[in-house]
Amino acid sequence: MSEGTAVAPRVDGDRLLGRLAELARLGAIDGGGCARLALTDADREGRDLVVTWMRDLGMRVDVDVVGNIIGTWDVGQGAPVMTGSHIDTVRTGGRYDGNLGVLAGLEVVESLMTAGVRPRRPFAVAVFSNEEGARFQPDMLGSLVYVGGLAVEDALSTMSIDGCAYGDELTRIGYAGNLPCPAPAPHAFVELHIEQGPVLEREGFRFGAVTGVQGISWQEVRIDGQSNHAGTTPMDLRHDPAVVAARITVFLRELAERYGGHQVCTVGRVDLHPNLINVVPKSATLTLDVRNTDEAKLRSAEAEIDDFVRRVAAAEGVSITRRVLARFEPVDFDPRVVDIVAAAIEAKGTTHRRLPSGAGHDAQMLARVCPTAMIFTPSHLGISHNPAEHTDDADLIDGAQILLDVMLELADTDFEPASGGRS
Amino acid sequence: MSEGTAVAPRVDGDRLLGRLAELARLGAIDGGGCARLALTDADREGRDLVVTWMRDLGMRVDVDVVGNIIGTWDVGQGAPVMTGSHIDTVRTGGRYDGNLGVLAGLEVVESLMTAGVRPRRPFAVAVFSNEEGARFQPDMLGSLVYVGGLAVEDALSTMSIDGCAYGDELTRIGYAGNLPCPAPAPHAFVELHIEQGPVLEREGFRFGAVTGVQGISWQEVRIDGQSNHAGTTPMDLRHDPAVVAARITVFLRELAERYGGHQVCTVGRVDLHPNLINVVPKSATLTLDVRNTDEAKLRSAEAEIDDFVRRVAAAEGVSITRRVLARFEPVDFDPRVVDIVAAAIEAKGTTHRRLPSGAGHDAQMLARVCPTAMIFTPSHLGISHNPAEHTDDADLIDGAQILLDVMLELADTDFEPASGGRS
Repeated sequence: MSEGTAVAPRVDGDRLLGRLAELARLGAIDGGGCARLALTDADREGRDLVVTWMRDLGMRVDVDVVGNIIGTWDVGQGAPVMTGSHIDTVRTGGRYDGNLGVLAGLEVVESLMTAGVRPRRPFAVAVFSNEEGARFQPDMLGSLVYVGGLAVEDALSTMSIDGCAYGDELTRIGYAGNLPCPAPAPHAFVELHIEQGPVLEREGFRFGAVTGVQGISWQEVRIDGQSNHAGTTPMDLRHDPAVVAARITVFLRELAERYGGHQVCTVGRVDLHPNLINVVPKSATLTLDVRNTDEAKLRSAEAEIDDFVRRVAAAEGVSITRRVLARFEPVDFDPRVVDIVAAAIEAKGTTHRRLPSGAGHDAQMLARVCPTAMIFTPSHLGISHNPAEHTDDADLIDGAQILLDVMLELADTDFEPASGGRS
Repeated sequence: MSEGTAVAPRVDGDRLLGRLAELARLGAIDGGGCARLALTDADREGRDLVVTWMRDLGMRVDVDVVGNIIGTWDVGQGAPVMTGSHIDTVRTGGRYDGNLGVLAGLEVVESLMTAGVRPRRPFAVAVFSNEEGARFQPDMLGSLVYVGGLAVEDALSTMSIDGCAYGDELTRIGYAGNLPCPAPAPHAFVELHIEQGPVLEREGFRFGAVTGVQGISWQEVRIDGQSNHAGTTPMDLRHDPAVVAARITVFLRELAERYGGHQVCTVGRVDLHPNLINVVPKSATLTLDVRNTDEAKLRSAEAEIDDFVRRVAAAEGVSITRRVLARFEPVDFDPRVVDIVAAAIEAKGTTHRRLPSGAGHDAQMLARVCPTAMIFTPSHLGISHNPAEHTDDADLIDGAQILLDVMLELADTDFEPASGGRS
């Protein structure tokens, strides 16, 4: 246990909820949600507020070359135990996605400071840039550069959907910092986040110990056929992109059911042209979102889909154009950190559910350089990326408490298997 | 044979093509097509031009209370042999759809006048209002009111897609006439029209003797499910409207193939909401266009679709809202008129193809009150409702010649089976 007390102190729930509410006022939208797209003025206002809070706590605030903000409580020795998340949102975002992880990190620091507990290692709270990818792609850009997964120059030259360069916008909002990337690896990383899915609530768990992040395969399929009169064109003369798009959609559903486990497949977007009741469409464009925790199964799914698309297109006499939109391999979190999270949940007197994350998170980037895991709080009805996103106050507060417990435990844990432990 | 000559005179191809070109200049759009939506200024210009041509030929011009224009050559005795079609177009229309039928009618009259041939009955050329239904629904409104299928008041109060009342627009363009509806039945009706489908060209026929018009069942199906994160929502918790829409689309294709014959099914419009790659849609709206020449089969198809939609919605846990957009029973043309058309085609030294029309036409309304059929000319590649709509000049001209031959034959034919014939 860290110095100062034998019992971990309690987080201050009102303070945490107060900060969540105050941050949610910046970029507020109808329905209680937020629109703080990355590197906009609203994002700057959010950053300024968080930095003020960090400074008020006496933390050292560093900003790196892609705008990641690292607030450090310089206690103890060695590489820091890091937590954090992001405060950028999608255009119709909620108030918890990302924000909870950052503000719970501040709450951990303030609670420990107040209680006079000094961890054995520095505690760092990170605000990673452009996690959502709603304005600049790829998503998770800040944490990706932080761990060396993307060159700084490439990040800075990324163009936004509104035609601005990342580097220019970063300078404009005053968050082009000096800290170089990639940064030194933390001792360990843990992120508290809302689940953004329905599993915990449905199965009656209050917290999840996140075992990893699903691999993601995104592609766009454009089908070109032959536009024709719906009344006068015999069935055997048709080259109908809508039918091909429908067959692919059904195939994806059936594939996901056949694979089972963590396989999910979604066709979320379909655009027919000209999209009129009495015209066989000329073209259809649809997106395929395919995810699995297992890279081999994800590849197998991709290969089956490839093959099916080719066969169904040939049978209908349409042409296919495909474009990969994103591809991330699955990430496995460190089982030792997952165990620490699970134990902290159990210590709260509740059972834990181990589950993979279906969404991407900054933690998956940090997992490349240090022992990492995540803590999930439930999302009511699984709703996220929506002003209606909701997690009960008690879950937010107890989630922060679990984060505190886990961070203290991580500070006391030596992850070098055979190097002799702490001296 | 009618009085004046033993051999039917020839139509003047250059004159016909000239009128087609002159009319196509009004409301002309890129690619050689036309945009003359019903009761717009462009429609008025087209009407003015056709009326001028009718008057120049010495025809009596009547306009009825819903704007149908009837040009009559007052020769012979009794009810007229009527031909005609429409000159309104869709927003991206071609230059032949409808226009050919009206201008070929004028050409028939002028050719006969020039040759000194006097038919045994009056010849009438009708320009029916709002056939396309692109601005006011239902389509074929003018001919529907003409035969008493829709009350005049209902027609006049119909609102356009741009928020104007039919009656107001009719008055505005100066075509609110006095002739009452329903009008007296013609002796017979025959309409020359482009096929708007690929059958004649594909099978190597130059002309079609149209046996009837398919029944049409149009409905919109709205599917409401549950929007969710595509990565975090397990397959067994999904209520995905896109999958249901896809299953319905595939079912319609398979039903059409299973029924065979003249059954056609089309899903031409699909709208997902919010239509994003990583969101299980909240709703899907799709249109079902189902047609058959056989009412019993059409009803059977509708019933099967009803049943399937209910079952697939229940299985996915989504709700369904359905709206009938149009429903017309199949129309059988008069076999005696079809035989006359077929004989006239054969007399041109070419073979005829009997076929039903997949599209709706004014002739199907006239068929309610008098012996009726249609003549089809080929449509290159079946393209229609498109500036690229094309029929070869020789087919246009020979089509008008067949119309002339048929109209003369109709004037000489007594359709009353047992009333003693002409006196």
